Amino acid sequence: MADQLFSYTRLLKFTEAVFLYIGCNAAGARLAAEGLLSADLRGIDSHGIARLTGYVRLWEAGRANTSPSIKIIHETPSTAVVDGDSGLGLIVAPFSMQIAIEKAKLVGTGWVSVQHSNHFGIGARHAMMALEEDMIGIAMTNASPLVAPTFSTERLLGTNPICVAIPAGAEPDFVADLATTTAANGKLEILQRKNEKAPSGWIQDKNGGESVNPHELKSGGALLPLGGDKEHGSHKGYALGAIVDIFSAVLSGANYGPWVPPFPAFMPMPEQMPGKGIGHFFGAMRIDAFRPAADFKEHMDNWIRRFRSATPVDPKQPVLIPGDPERETEIIRAALGIPLLAAVVNDLNGLGEKFGIKL
Amino acid sequence: MADQLFSYTRLLKFTEAVFLYIGCNAAGARLAAEGLLSADLRGIDSHGIARLTGYVRLWEAGRANTSPSIKIIHETPSTAVVDGDSGLGLIVAPFSMQIAIEKAKLVGTGWVSVQHSNHFGIGARHAMMALEEDMIGIAMTNASPLVAPTFSTERLLGTNPICVAIPAGAEPDFVADLATTTAANGKLEILQRKNEKAPSGWIQDKNGGESVNPHELKSGGALLPLGGDKEHGSHKGYALGAIVDIFSAVLSGANYGPWVPPFPAFMPMPEQMPGKGIGHFFGAMRIDAFRPAADFKEHMDNWIRRFRSATPVDPKQPVLIPGDPERETEIIRAALGIPLLAAVVNDLNGLGEKFGIKL
Repeated sequence: MADQLFSYTRLLKFTEAVFLYIGCNAAGARLAAEGLLSADLRGIDSHGIARLTGYVRLWEAGRANTSPSIKIIHETPSTAVVDGDSGLGLIVAPFSMQIAIEKAKLVGTGWVSVQHSNHFGIGARHAMMALEEDMIGIAMTNASPLVAPTFSTERLLGTNPICVAIPAGAEPDFVADLATTTAANGKLEILQRKNEKAPSGWIQDKNGGESVNPHELKSGGALLPLGGDKEHGSHKGYALGAIVDIFSAVLSGANYGPWVPPFPAFMPMPEQMPGKGIGHFFGAMRIDAFRPAADFKEHMDNWIRRFRSATPVDPKQPVLIPGDPERETEIIRAALGIPLLAAVVNDLNGLGEKFGIKL
Repeated sequence: MADQLFSYTRLLKFTEAVFLYIGCNAAGARLAAEGLLSADLRGIDSHGIARLTGYVRLWEAGRANTSPSIKIIHETPSTAVVDGDSGLGLIVAPFSMQIAIEKAKLVGTGWVSVQHSNHFGIGARHAMMALEEDMIGIAMTNASPLVAPTFSTERLLGTNPICVAIPAGAEPDFVADLATTTAANGKLEILQRKNEKAPSGWIQDKNGGESVNPHELKSGGALLPLGGDKEHGSHKGYALGAIVDIFSAVLSGANYGPWVPPFPAFMPMPEQMPGKGIGHFFGAMRIDAFRPAADFKEHMDNWIRRFRSATPVDPKQPVLIPGDPERETEIIRAALGIPLLAAVVNDLNGLGEKFGIKL
């Protein structure tokens, strides 16, 4: 079935109305809707409006607070810990990133670890807030466990993404946003819908054996850390996912490892949780805390041009700079609309009918 | 030929004497020798005393300054840029990491980007300086280009390692130290010596095709970013290596990408270099800038125990915590001695004879 195209404005209005309906104030609903849809604009469909019903179910289950009292519970000149009060990560994250930016204005860098939050959408949305301030932005989050550490059959880590946004001058900014797994869960979901096999090295079965079945996670299988297996460096992907988990949750007092609460509201909460909610970590580094921003950007342009003009293996596929595919998708979708799967449209229509909001 | 065993003390004395001979002062020679040998103790043989003759050749070629005037050229309360004055990275790195630590004492975190340096040995040596201060330590460095970005045949990035050291309580500390490639160059060197094939996904040939020839880099081939190929996430390894390059060199004013000077002194310098020397990046985050150190360490112990006790795929291979293998090697080698290949011993004996220093 062909995807339906929706304008950004139409989806934004609908999403904003849904967030208002479930109790967000006007500014919060707008922020959350823009945050969610930034994923659709950038082509990260798994993290966009397709998840709106999931956020609503978290609210229905009493697991997301739409009028949270988000606050700093500890700070130094360059750091803060934020308590998200079980708010939507889509609102807690920009609040926390702004604190990092304000601290960077004062002392050069700012670093904020967040407890008691929920899923924050895509990291790029938050890290990129730093760009307009001539700062490098960093965003990480932990997530519910889908990934087995090297040598294990147990799912102990989320896909725990790292995003780093770096300003350039005349060239487009450098924006790397990567799950610390071989493949993001969203890519697996696409294969599930198409009922196609997964490449080897993405997942393992419940005994830790190789699998190409995209439905394997439903039978106790796991996603694999970036690298795939030990011989190809999966211990590095595991270490990176662990670092994200520790920065986001052990530093802040959120839940970590297997205790991170699941996104689907119907799933039971883990037992004996050691912290509050899920955790994020944000950083902002003012460029001119290191060297004049104009000099830096000139060299970033030089860096980007050199890499972009590198000899390609295949002349039809030039070398990309992190952020290129998402930026190109954003230009197209802002102009032509955002394609949604029929299943997603049905979901949204159901939500609209329930709440009396027209898509 | 069997490896010869040497005591740490014996190798330390020899290395210290060599660094003194080439012009380091007493404190610098000691620091550089301890830094170099920390790699041998931890089992990272490719970065230890086997490279001593390489460092000497850099000095002979006028590319390493053994009495540098290392200084801060720009700073804010939480940041600094250090000019290493072409000093040995083994000395420039601890100097810079100490600045990060001192800044973290004052404002919570400290971040130092370094220009005009040379190879700094292993990142763990420097990042771990933070542990005794109850801080998280971070160390990165760029390096001469051996790695092709995804879709390219050109070598534009070094193996650009990231090290993160995190203090625990009763459990041993968490120390992840990883090249942003599928396999570190040192592992390839081992295969070269044994004339064994490399696993697929480690290297490509000069046209970007698959290769298992460990000597491929001599014929224009390249190491591959962590992930190996696009389908397995090599664009993520490429992005991580790029971030290390930018933090270490574009922020500081060092050389980046294909312009990073080579370690072997006989190799020509790149043309039109955009910066000075090679670059590093260091960070220190005081734990109690986020939460009380005792609470954090209790949760780190919980994290570590949970992961260590995860169900293994093979009961004979339990799940490891980053840093476990190196720590175990260090215990054994500190007690029983450091094994050196005959070729390395010959190299060191040659150096000893030239300088009148007995191994």
